[in-house]
Amino acid sequence: MLNRPGSGVFISFEGIDGSGKSTQARALAEDLRAQGHKVVLTREPGGATGAEAIRRLLVEGDPDRWSPETEILLFNAARRDHLEKTILPALARGEIVITDRFADSTRVYQGTARAALRPLVDRLHDLVIGLEPDLTFVIDLDARTALARGLARDSGEDRFEVMGQDFQERLRAGFLALAREYPARVQLVDGGRAPDQISADLAGRMQRFLGALA
Amino acid sequence: MLNRPGSGVFISFEGIDGSGKSTQARALAEDLRAQGHKVVLTREPGGATGAEAIRRLLVEGDPDRWSPETEILLFNAARRDHLEKTILPALARGEIVITDRFADSTRVYQGTARAALRPLVDRLHDLVIGLEPDLTFVIDLDARTALARGLARDSGEDRFEVMGQDFQERLRAGFLALAREYPARVQLVDGGRAPDQISADLAGRMQRFLGALA
Repeated sequence: MLNRPGSGVFISFEGIDGSGKSTQARALAEDLRAQGHKVVLTREPGGATGAEAIRRLLVEGDPDRWSPETEILLFNAARRDHLEKTILPALARGEIVITDRFADSTRVYQGTARAALRPLVDRLHDLVIGLEPDLTFVIDLDARTALARGLARDSGEDRFEVMGQDFQERLRAGFLALAREYPARVQLVDGGRAPDQISADLAGRMQRFLGALA
Repeated sequence: MLNRPGSGVFISFEGIDGSGKSTQARALAEDLRAQGHKVVLTREPGGATGAEAIRRLLVEGDPDRWSPETEILLFNAARRDHLEKTILPALARGEIVITDRFADSTRVYQGTARAALRPLVDRLHDLVIGLEPDLTFVIDLDARTALARGLARDSGEDRFEVMGQDFQERLRAGFLALAREYPARVQLVDGGRAPDQISADLAGRMQRFLGALA
């Protein structure tokens, strides 16, 4: 467990691949910077030099390369490095950190792959991470539309994307369940609208959130 | 926690770098094979395809590349893969597994670097490993002699070896403490003798151990 330093604000974007969360995270970061805020835009797995090296082990290669348990350990190793090297220093400087995925992704992906894994995910999180975002935006989109977008990318990082539409639909349900589990922190965002419309919605929500903190 | 399958025998070698444990693990494997036993000789970190990829993250690069906590997570990820892909299948086939390092190395190295880390090491072990060797040989040698041997190797995997003689002496004390903590499992072996003499000693101890099991 790490102590939360400083007066920064920690925001995460979650959702299935192709939901538009990365685009929206970037747009929100730009909007906040235009208003004069210092913003660190980052992502998981990765977001720090060591964590990016662990990311390569996680996202490349055979989908059966790791067991779910080994995968959960690697995600937590990458997250711990990301937290120590990128997130906590930025929060200590009073900046806004926007991350494309955080611990919720592990809860949903690994917990969906095998429900019995969720206690392991939670215990590891409590043991070595312990920090939650102040606010989490789940960009919600049906799996069919999201999958068509995601596969169009051809990033080579397709270990999760090859799992198919049924699995993506179960993941979507997992993110919806997460919003019910953490109602004070997690906000659902309709990802089926035009990107500009979603960005404007998010910018408004963010203003209200920062206003409430001030 | 994994269930222990089959009727195999699980042996580990521990000790500081340069203690001669790798040489002795190999000699014992050859001796047992000559007697007709099926033996899997393996090592940590590594011992399976995925675990060897994690090993490269652990043993190469700057000594400060990872925080102790991230390092412990990576060691457990590699160990879990090693267990699933190499150790448990061999034990299920009724074979003898000899590993050059196992969980005791994490207990001693990470616990020596920072004593406050030992509870994290123990909780992670209980959560994702859960298995102990049937018998552990700690090859005990003074740090000065061991360090001179270890540095002569020039393997490029020197993240731990560069830590110096004082740290090696504290590690040695850690392994001695481990033998007191687990007296039923851990046997101390005087590593200051001629290699052939140590091998003969180990072969005799192994015969007595297997005889007691039969």
